[in-house]
Amino acid sequence: MGRPSDDVSALIAEVSDGGRPRAVARLISLIEDRSPQIRQISAGLAASSGRAHVVGITGSPGVGKSTSTSALVGALRAAGRRVGVLAVDPSSPFTGGALLGDRIRMQDHATDDGVYIRSMASRGHLGGLSASAPQALRVFDAAGCDVVLVETVGVGQSEVEISGIADTSVVLLAPGMGDGIQAAKAGILEIGDIFVINKADRDGANTTRREIRTVISMTDRTPDAWVPPVVMTVATKSEGAADLVEQIEAHREHLESSGELQRRRLARVRREIEALALSEVQNRFEQRSGGSDLDALSAQVLGGQIDPFTAADHLIAELG
Amino acid sequence: MGRPSDDVSALIAEVSDGGRPRAVARLISLIEDRSPQIRQISAGLAASSGRAHVVGITGSPGVGKSTSTSALVGALRAAGRRVGVLAVDPSSPFTGGALLGDRIRMQDHATDDGVYIRSMASRGHLGGLSASAPQALRVFDAAGCDVVLVETVGVGQSEVEISGIADTSVVLLAPGMGDGIQAAKAGILEIGDIFVINKADRDGANTTRREIRTVISMTDRTPDAWVPPVVMTVATKSEGAADLVEQIEAHREHLESSGELQRRRLARVRREIEALALSEVQNRFEQRSGGSDLDALSAQVLGGQIDPFTAADHLIAELG
Repeated sequence: MGRPSDDVSALIAEVSDGGRPRAVARLISLIEDRSPQIRQISAGLAASSGRAHVVGITGSPGVGKSTSTSALVGALRAAGRRVGVLAVDPSSPFTGGALLGDRIRMQDHATDDGVYIRSMASRGHLGGLSASAPQALRVFDAAGCDVVLVETVGVGQSEVEISGIADTSVVLLAPGMGDGIQAAKAGILEIGDIFVINKADRDGANTTRREIRTVISMTDRTPDAWVPPVVMTVATKSEGAADLVEQIEAHREHLESSGELQRRRLARVRREIEALALSEVQNRFEQRSGGSDLDALSAQVLGGQIDPFTAADHLIAELG
Repeated sequence: MGRPSDDVSALIAEVSDGGRPRAVARLISLIEDRSPQIRQISAGLAASSGRAHVVGITGSPGVGKSTSTSALVGALRAAGRRVGVLAVDPSSPFTGGALLGDRIRMQDHATDDGVYIRSMASRGHLGGLSASAPQALRVFDAAGCDVVLVETVGVGQSEVEISGIADTSVVLLAPGMGDGIQAAKAGILEIGDIFVINKADRDGANTTRREIRTVISMTDRTPDAWVPPVVMTVATKSEGAADLVEQIEAHREHLESSGELQRRRLARVRREIEALALSEVQNRFEQRSGGSDLDALSAQVLGGQIDPFTAADHLIAELG
């Protein structure tokens, strides 16, 4: 159990009452490290979350994701919002600090006490992002953030996974690079609530916009459904960031008035519970195998006495 | 339940007694499609497997993986072995046939009744490759294959995953491309039992060999441990394929005499059972939520009445 449990109670109180940055950082570290106290943290935060608007930021490498996130933070601050940033790297086995060191642009906000910035590795284990990111989001939420930006670092499936965590998914694109077609292929167009064409001062920005709009217009939707807007930005100059904030807030209003916010959050919690349960079941399989059902069953399967499905049934039956 | 169950019994008999290719293909399709009959298949094959030597073939795109596999099949056939080839694409949602259509070189062996060729998608679901590939391997095994080659198509983590399925892992490299360093980074060097430098007639082949040997020599191992050999090949001309067969057989002998074969297979079965059990647990969560614990728990978490860990506990408690 490590530290005394009232330590966590104190941290939760410090987060909930004014959002002390060090307490925020400490709680997220405990979550990321899967501390035994994670249950206590989760129980302590259960009642105080659900206020923050979670915005996912995805896009291929090179589109200017971290610059765009930084510009968006600036625009949200200018609009008086408290902001949390969670940078998730599902492909990295490395935690927190090192990664953030590289994110020079974010240094613009390092001394602003209305901004919390935190990176997190999900380490590719079972339930990774689904299990740990929502916990971290609750910390930002309890600390009083109005908006939490979740940015994926790295590539791959994580983009679709992020969309499962966010209330609003912002998909970044850049001119050229056949980004429109690439995005369609990658299934990104289905998850985007808002599209941003960054580097909009470059050649081809209008072509990319036209492509994306065409794809959007070809999607079947009900008459009152949200039609994803396309926002043009030049993140390095913070151009278009205020437009993006406006669209994010419009989407939030749409989510609330349509009941979609509740539906998305219910689905998110559902995945979270399932991921936690599967992770716990796997732990129990592993612990048990210390002494040592799984080993005995494996030997029987290898010897041809039973088949692996029957072995799996035995393993499950022992769970209770 | 679809088809009558004696259909599967007949297929198993046809596979076990002479290895009729159509029955092999049909059983693997049922496994890949997760037919309800998969348990019956698994039980029917349980006693008749464990003879075939499973050889994993991995390597970055462009090293000549499919050409090398084809050359290796030729050399194994020349040595009188019956051969199965399982091409696994963990990143693809597409099944079987289409993929193989592209694998022109494999057509060399299409009319040889001592060779079974089959591709399989694992579709990225929970336990994917670990859960379904071993089942498919047992079909080849029961059909009388002496050697089964498992080749990954696509990229990524699958290489490490394949090494968990194989008795012997063959890692392919090509000259240039900084392959030695790339391989070290990707963790491939740790999983290789045999290294192949393909395209050995190109510039830089000797440099790559020297790099790989240096890395191999720097690895700590016990005095009687296997030292991975480095085989030079030109797969397009089948050069070096017979050397590779020799090294594969030498590794098999080492595995048997050292007891490592048993250890590896036990670990493989262990992962398989665990993956099947987790997949079944997830099914039960999903089914139950039809009527409808998971939904009710999600609503309670969203409302702040309980925390997600407690919800996960409830879900697990309902399993029994």
